[in-house]
Amino acid sequence: MKKWTIGVDVGGTEVKFGLFDDKLQEKWSIPTNIQDKGAHILPEIAESVVERCRASGIHKEDLAGIGIGLPGPVLGGNIVKGCVNLGWAEIPVADELSRLLEAAFEQKEGNSSASVGMGTVIPVQAANDANVAALGEMWLGGGKNCTSLVMVTLGTGVGGGIVTDGHILDGVGGCAGEIGHIICVEEEDIVGSCNCGNRGCLEQIASATGIVNYSRHYLDKSDIPSILRDILKEKESFSAKDVLDAAKSGDGAAEQIVDKITMYLGRVLAGICLVVNPECILIGGGVSAAGEYLRARVEQKFREQAFPGIKDTAVRLAVLGNEAGIAGAAYMIQGKDSSL
Amino acid sequence: MKKWTIGVDVGGTEVKFGLFDDKLQEKWSIPTNIQDKGAHILPEIAESVVERCRASGIHKEDLAGIGIGLPGPVLGGNIVKGCVNLGWAEIPVADELSRLLEAAFEQKEGNSSASVGMGTVIPVQAANDANVAALGEMWLGGGKNCTSLVMVTLGTGVGGGIVTDGHILDGVGGCAGEIGHIICVEEEDIVGSCNCGNRGCLEQIASATGIVNYSRHYLDKSDIPSILRDILKEKESFSAKDVLDAAKSGDGAAEQIVDKITMYLGRVLAGICLVVNPECILIGGGVSAAGEYLRARVEQKFREQAFPGIKDTAVRLAVLGNEAGIAGAAYMIQGKDSSL
Repeated sequence: MKKWTIGVDVGGTEVKFGLFDDKLQEKWSIPTNIQDKGAHILPEIAESVVERCRASGIHKEDLAGIGIGLPGPVLGGNIVKGCVNLGWAEIPVADELSRLLEAAFEQKEGNSSASVGMGTVIPVQAANDANVAALGEMWLGGGKNCTSLVMVTLGTGVGGGIVTDGHILDGVGGCAGEIGHIICVEEEDIVGSCNCGNRGCLEQIASATGIVNYSRHYLDKSDIPSILRDILKEKESFSAKDVLDAAKSGDGAAEQIVDKITMYLGRVLAGICLVVNPECILIGGGVSAAGEYLRARVEQKFREQAFPGIKDTAVRLAVLGNEAGIAGAAYMIQGKDSSL
Repeated sequence: MKKWTIGVDVGGTEVKFGLFDDKLQEKWSIPTNIQDKGAHILPEIAESVVERCRASGIHKEDLAGIGIGLPGPVLGGNIVKGCVNLGWAEIPVADELSRLLEAAFEQKEGNSSASVGMGTVIPVQAANDANVAALGEMWLGGGKNCTSLVMVTLGTGVGGGIVTDGHILDGVGGCAGEIGHIICVEEEDIVGSCNCGNRGCLEQIASATGIVNYSRHYLDKSDIPSILRDILKEKESFSAKDVLDAAKSGDGAAEQIVDKITMYLGRVLAGICLVVNPECILIGGGVSAAGEYLRARVEQKFREQAFPGIKDTAVRLAVLGNEAGIAGAAYMIQGKDSSL
């Protein structure tokens, strides 16, 4: 009897699903229905899972379980403490989804398999989406063969996930891995305040938004000619990609900007390594599309500021992109099984 | 049959021992024999354990095991990667001590109990001393009833230990918890270089030595009158305790110095909490003798710079002092048993 696992990654606009055995076999998605304070999200997830199982000839008893990543802090693999993007307050997600799956399978499979399925509950495990992505990269991505890693996700904000001993580190309040809000930026490089209310968070300089804000701040203070000023004149704005592309092409100002950003990023990563001392560091998120250029610079700044005992920590790019979430969600179930 | 545990804490000048059941029942110590590159240390530990067991009527089979804390990075509960203070290179400490204990018990208990003891190996578990102290505080000290905590030890240097899920987090190279070398000090407050070769480590401003160095640096730049200048004139030097005492007594310059030091300490602790999100933070080490005065200030600076989700993390003083090491060492064995 083949055991399948389904990984679910709930975002603000889309819910992604992946059907896994030892790798991804099928994936699909549905829109995130945020009406009525997100009350339909879990029922629609249960519906979609059961629908897809029926279509693929997978019975309830063939499912090892379902993992789900959520955009908010999650406690004990079950209780989400609130997801602003979904409209959710505190919800016992794993318990709730497990119950909904029971009901949906009962209805679809009907009497024919009711006797087989009776009494078996489908295990559901929930966690924060950034932590889940880190676990996914460990299983099938840039952290393969590692049992501990730190992943930093450079997107609109800066997120992070920590894996130790093969498991997500989520902390007592589900805030472990929220590394975007580590304060590191020195006064002269701070632009305004962070969304969290503090000043000098990593996110303020290393997120896509932060890169743009810091670049404008830098250009205001500097006389060095830069292609970024031309873009600004022409389009009235530039993107983090513009900054990284300019640096890659040898634009002096952009190079100095990237130097400063990677200095702070390297410093924070060196600090994190002194807390958890992982096997590797992964850089993911939209900004990491800058690829080897960015990775090599972060690695250099990391090594320059790293305590001797952690200097050789591998610095790699994340590779799974959007699929990291569904992979990690599935692995929350699979990894548990294999450790039994 | 009563099961005893012995906790051993190996320092550069003294090896401390504690005999524990559910609390400390006896303690003793021997000098650390660092002759011959520390080759006698483990044999003398084995000798002392067996001697004390004989004197207390404890047989080999009454021992649940022995935990040992060491002043260096330890991998997998066994291999120490080198202890400069002891003269050691890489040694499989747990395996070695286990073997030595077998031999010493064999010799002492002689034929009478050889048949009973035969085949049973005394479990030995090794870890870094700062990590072990954190575990000890969790078991019997300031972190009682917690299963996760971060301990920062403000002594000659700044050390640290991290406990997650009731266990020491030691990391792939045994460097987890080396939080004294997190870079946090801004350029204008940096005095010289850190022993590790970097600049701006927490240790450079928050260790006893760092407090003195920063205070001198501050006094050189400032015109504010201070009792510290009088002490300097009289004794040509002052201590970290002098600085904290002066601040407590309302000396304006000393208050500003303590304000700056606790600002950096609070910031680093806030950053660490975003990595592991522990239940509590403990402040230990010689500098923490400043007590509630220091704790309250660190707590305030921590809260001012903490991300909302971690703001309420408890900030407490460590309470076991020198006994934290033997307690944590014993708990490495006891905690394992109770989780089985």
